[in-house]
Amino acid sequence: MVSVATVQQLLTPAFTVDIRKVERNARKMLERSQALGVQLRPHMKTHKTVECADIMTGGCRRRIAVSTLAEARFYADCGFDDILYAFPLPRDKVAACAELAERLDRFQVLLDSAVAVTELEKMRLSGGKSWLVWLKLDCNNGRAGVRPEDSAALSLAKSIADSEALELVGVYAHCGNSYDAAGIPEIQAVALETTMATLKFVEKLGRAGVKCLRSSIGSTPTCSHPVPEMGHLNELHPGNYIFYDVQQMLIGSCQLDDVAVRVMTRVIGHYPHRNQLLVDCGWSALSLHGMGKMPTGYAIVDGHPDLKLVGMTQEHGRIEPISGKLDVDKFPHGTLLSLIPYHACATAAMHAVYFVHSEGRIVEEWRPTRGW
Amino acid sequence: MVSVATVQQLLTPAFTVDIRKVERNARKMLERSQALGVQLRPHMKTHKTVECADIMTGGCRRRIAVSTLAEARFYADCGFDDILYAFPLPRDKVAACAELAERLDRFQVLLDSAVAVTELEKMRLSGGKSWLVWLKLDCNNGRAGVRPEDSAALSLAKSIADSEALELVGVYAHCGNSYDAAGIPEIQAVALETTMATLKFVEKLGRAGVKCLRSSIGSTPTCSHPVPEMGHLNELHPGNYIFYDVQQMLIGSCQLDDVAVRVMTRVIGHYPHRNQLLVDCGWSALSLHGMGKMPTGYAIVDGHPDLKLVGMTQEHGRIEPISGKLDVDKFPHGTLLSLIPYHACATAAMHAVYFVHSEGRIVEEWRPTRGW
Repeated sequence: MVSVATVQQLLTPAFTVDIRKVERNARKMLERSQALGVQLRPHMKTHKTVECADIMTGGCRRRIAVSTLAEARFYADCGFDDILYAFPLPRDKVAACAELAERLDRFQVLLDSAVAVTELEKMRLSGGKSWLVWLKLDCNNGRAGVRPEDSAALSLAKSIADSEALELVGVYAHCGNSYDAAGIPEIQAVALETTMATLKFVEKLGRAGVKCLRSSIGSTPTCSHPVPEMGHLNELHPGNYIFYDVQQMLIGSCQLDDVAVRVMTRVIGHYPHRNQLLVDCGWSALSLHGMGKMPTGYAIVDGHPDLKLVGMTQEHGRIEPISGKLDVDKFPHGTLLSLIPYHACATAAMHAVYFVHSEGRIVEEWRPTRGW
Repeated sequence: MVSVATVQQLLTPAFTVDIRKVERNARKMLERSQALGVQLRPHMKTHKTVECADIMTGGCRRRIAVSTLAEARFYADCGFDDILYAFPLPRDKVAACAELAERLDRFQVLLDSAVAVTELEKMRLSGGKSWLVWLKLDCNNGRAGVRPEDSAALSLAKSIADSEALELVGVYAHCGNSYDAAGIPEIQAVALETTMATLKFVEKLGRAGVKCLRSSIGSTPTCSHPVPEMGHLNELHPGNYIFYDVQQMLIGSCQLDDVAVRVMTRVIGHYPHRNQLLVDCGWSALSLHGMGKMPTGYAIVDGHPDLKLVGMTQEHGRIEPISGKLDVDKFPHGTLLSLIPYHACATAAMHAVYFVHSEGRIVEEWRPTRGW
């Protein structure tokens, strides 16, 4: 059900997705994984739609990672399985996780603490099912996870493997520190470091007699430029690559041409006395994530490298030339401009509808799930 | 329909609204307007719910300002009238505005350009109705609006008043520059400047024989600390005051105790090696608007002035002490923390449900409209 025919006709602001770029980004990541001999477990957090999940999983609706319980339920309700809730198991959601674990073949949780092991042991699953558990490792990312070099990591893995109620499925590391990289060599240094730390920990588990079948690392930068050593892992779990964004381009994950998403906006006013245009895109449509990151301001104005989105309020954006005088006659009221977001996950999160197009022709409307 | 009984039981992250504070904030603003002898036209952009609109309008469902066409339709569908779409009239939405103008008694639009006057003249309303038009003034705010001292302002007002299809209802100024104020004297200086510039322009219109019945200014800082001269205006149109936030407290609009909203979050992990806790609130629940604004990081942790929310990713927040060593035993896994947002409009925008409580007991769930 599509309400308008072309991107040009959209009421603005509007979030658009170039389906051909999405398909190309998905295919390339699948090919990279296959070339490495590892399975792809795409992360859904960037888009949170069923249509895009189908593209990322090649239609099989199996083997995905999600960031919220709401996503897990949404995909379970749509017939997906082999879902990893890739978030440190929160106590308030254990009962809801049990419901999913009982309903699906392979609903999996992730944890990094003895407290979480205890919580799972207290909430036994019906039908003699075991909790399928991934241990979260922190390989120099500095967010969630146990550090593989800490003795606590081994003892936590043991406690999962030894529990009657739990099964240790694998170890999982998010190499979010790849976001600090600039260029492919730095990305690959993080990829190698994370891979080796993860594999070393799996060996350590083996030596200690702890059975752990799988290992998975992920982040869009590292999975866009994998190192051969990643072939010794079992899974990769990137997410943002399906859309990419200016941040990924600046890191070196992709080219600007790979970025599949835009916020379409229109000129709503001319203010020559301060050399500015107003557009109808504020932070409610773009987010503030680009703040201070680019010479072009909060976004890149597609096709206008000389323009800068200098500020936004809730529904207004202020655009001015990077230098020189603005020629307002080039941008009459109603002119459609296309903003390339700095952070696609954050911009997508502001929209209840994604307008999906092929060469500017709207072909689908996708509606993401939200909440927690 | 309320799904949980208390704030303590909410799944997190969750956006909560203290109904007693909302009612107090609403009452005070109504009283301030009455004391000045001006009408309050509350702005809906902060909350976008019907329940809160009822509180702000004292149940009359008349005289509101909105920031999007989606809000205008939502409130029209809920039986509200005298709605001002307080956004520079966008060309792509003129037809939709005509539908509202024909359906409601008093649907009003705002403009700041001759182009918009032409657009309205081309789209005649049925039944001999005139477009009800406010002229947007820029009294040193630097966003939308014509500057009252420019000759273009007077000629634009004349063209509205002279048009058969249009009626000049009033002049409207948003004193967003009050957000740069620190303390009540600076707020009141902006209030006075905006008021005098607006009134002077209305006088100028009168001298030129242009009938303009109403004048309205607004912003939460200025309307929270009005100057007596504002009594010569006809309307005030603040919005954020219904919730307030840390930004308003820092400007001087309110006390911290007036802030009615929180993001509830839980501790999901301890990382003593880096002196940090993780909580289940990332930017998807709080927004990044607090970045770099407070010694306590992206928010204030209610009741813990010693803690700092130092960073967020999509679903994770990292909290550490401002100084000294974190006592993790004080914050067991699952501990509920309450974050006071820097910018309530931005934080509310991340939530599809507001959990409304009275002394911690959930009394209602509000569901805002979104989109454009």
